[in-house]
Amino acid sequence: MTLLLDNQFKDLPPDKAIDTKLFLESVSHIPSFFDCLGSSVFSVIKSDINGNIMKIKGVYLKDPAKYVTLQDTVEAEREAHGAEWPKVGATLALMWLKRGLRFIQILLQSLADGESDENNPNLIRVNITKAYEQALKKYHGWIVQKIFHVALHAAPYKSNFLKALSKGEEVKEEDCLANVSQFLVNYTATVDAIYEMYTDLNAELDYTV
Amino acid sequence: MTLLLDNQFKDLPPDKAIDTKLFLESVSHIPSFFDCLGSSVFSVIKSDINGNIMKIKGVYLKDPAKYVTLQDTVEAEREAHGAEWPKVGATLALMWLKRGLRFIQILLQSLADGESDENNPNLIRVNITKAYEQALKKYHGWIVQKIFHVALHAAPYKSNFLKALSKGEEVKEEDCLANVSQFLVNYTATVDAIYEMYTDLNAELDYTV
Ligand SMILES: CCCCCCCCCCCCC/C=C/[C@@H](O)[C@H](CO[C@@H]1O[C@H](CO)[C@H](O)[C@H](OS(=O)(=O)O)[C@H]1O)NC(=O)CCCCCCCCCCC
Ligand SMILES: CCCCCCCCCCCCC/C=C/[C@@H](O)[C@H](CO[C@@H]1O[C@H](CO)[C@H](O)[C@H](OS(=O)(=O)O)[C@H]1O)NC(=O)CCCCCCCCCCC
Repeated sequence: MTLLLDNQFKDLPPDKAIDTKLFLESVSHIPSFFDCLGSSVFSVIKSDINGNIMKIKGVYLKDPAKYVTLQDTVEAEREAHGAEWPKVGATLALMWLKRGLRFIQILLQSLADGESDENNPNLIRVNITKAYEQALKKYHGWIVQKIFHVALHAAPYKSNFLKALSKGEEVKEEDCLANVSQFLVNYTATVDAIYEMYTDLNAELDYTV
Repeated sequence: MTLLLDNQFKDLPPDKAIDTKLFLESVSHIPSFFDCLGSSVFSVIKSDINGNIMKIKGVYLKDPAKYVTLQDTVEAEREAHGAEWPKVGATLALMWLKRGLRFIQILLQSLADGESDENNPNLIRVNITKAYEQALKKYHGWIVQKIFHVALHAAPYKSNFLKALSKGEEVKEEDCLANVSQFLVNYTATVDAIYEMYTDLNAELDYTV
C-alpha cells in the first residue's frame, strides 16, 4: 500500500460541492508529502501548507453547520469581511493551499506520464520545474523565484522519491506510478473544483510574494 | 517608544537562572522583529522561530512547577528522553531559538556600533552577513547558505529598518540606535546565559540542515 493510496480524496458529488470536513481530513495527509522530498529545506514549505490547513480548520470549527462546504465558507467570508475579502481568513488560506495542491498534482502527473530528462533520467528537476511554472511562479517575485532555483538542488532522485511515496517499501516503478495515477483521479477533480470556485466567486488574487 | 524598548528582557539573577515564564513572555515579541525586515521572504523565518517558542511553551505548560527555569527544563528532558536527547523537545527548540536570538543580537549590535558598508551606507547587508556568519552559517548546508545569499537581496534599507524598529515613527537614527543599545543589555546577557547553559550541560549539537 502506498502512502498516497492510503489517503484517497473522496468522489465529488455531481454539483462539485466539496464537504469541508472530508476535505480537511484528506488534505491533513498532504504536508507529509514534503517529507518525501527528503531535505529539511522543504520543511519550510510543509509548515506553510500546514498553516493554510490549520487556518481553514480554525474557521470551520467555529461553526461547522455554517461552513458545511468549502463554497459555503468562502461565501460566508465574503459576506462577513467586506473590502478586506478575499485577502482574508479561510478564503486566503485556501487560495494559497490550492496552489500548493496544484503544484503536487502537476508534479505527480508529469511523473505518471513518464516525462523525464533524457540526459538525467533519475532526476525529477524537469517535473518539479514544470509544476512550479504552472502552479506558482507567477505568484512569486524574483527573489523567491531565485530561491526556488537554488532549492531545486535539494530535490531527491526519482528512485528515492518514488520509494518515499511508497512508504519506504521497494515497489516497482510501474506499480508506484500506477498508484499515483489512481490517486490523481479524485485529487485532480477536487483541485479543479476549487479553482473553478475561485473563478466563479471572483475570489482569485494575483499579487506576488 | 520603540518596539524593542516596549519589550525589554528582564535582569538576570546572580546565578543566571532564566525564569521560563518570563522568558517566554519576552521572546513572544521576537517573531514580529522579522516583520521589520519588510519582505514576505522573512515570514518563513518568523514561523520557524515562532514554532520554537510554541514548542517550549507547550512543554512548560504541561507542568509549570517542574519547568520553572530554562535550566530545569533542559535537565528534566535529559532525564526523560535518554539517547534521543538533546535532539528532542524544548531542548532542541531552544537550541535553534538561541541561534536566531544570537543572529538578531549581532545584527543589532553591529548597527549600534556603526558598522557599515562605506560604499552603500544605507544598506544593512554587511551587518546581516556578519550576524549570519557568526550565529548560523555553520549549521546550514550549502543549499541553505546559498538561499541566504539570495534572500539577502530582500533586506530593507537601513533607514526603513530603523523606522520599522521604531514602530514606523520618524525617530532620529541616533535615538533609535540608543534605544537599541539599551535593549541589548539584558537581551545579550540572556542569550549569553543560554549559550553557557548549553555548553555546561553538553546539550549543543552541530548538525547542519
Ligand atoms: C537563514 C537563511 C534563509 C533565509 C531566508 C530564506 C527564506 C526563503 C523563503 C522562500 C519561500 C518559501 C515558500 C513560502 C512562500 C509563501 O510566502 C507563499 C505565500 O504564503 C501565503 O501568504 C499569505 C499572505 O500573503 C498568507 O500568509 C498565507 O497563509 S494563511 O494560511 O495565513 O492565509 C500563506 O500561505 N506560499 C507559497 O508560495 C506556497 C508554496 C507552496 C509549496 C510549493 C512547493 C515548492 C517546492 C519546490 C521544490 C524545489
Ligand atoms: C517555492 C519556492 C521556495 C522553495 C523552498 C525554499 C525553502 C527555503 C528554506 C530556507 C531555510 C529557512 C530557514 C529555516 C531553517 C530551519 O531548517 C532551521 C532548523 O530548524 C529547526 O530544525 C529542527 C530539526 O532539525 C527543529 O525542527 C526545530 O524546530 S522545533 O521547535 O520543533 O525544535 C527547527 O527550528 N532553522 C534555522 O536555521 C533558524 C533560522 C533563524 C533565523 C535566521 C535569520 C536569518 C535572516 C536572513 C536574512 C537574509
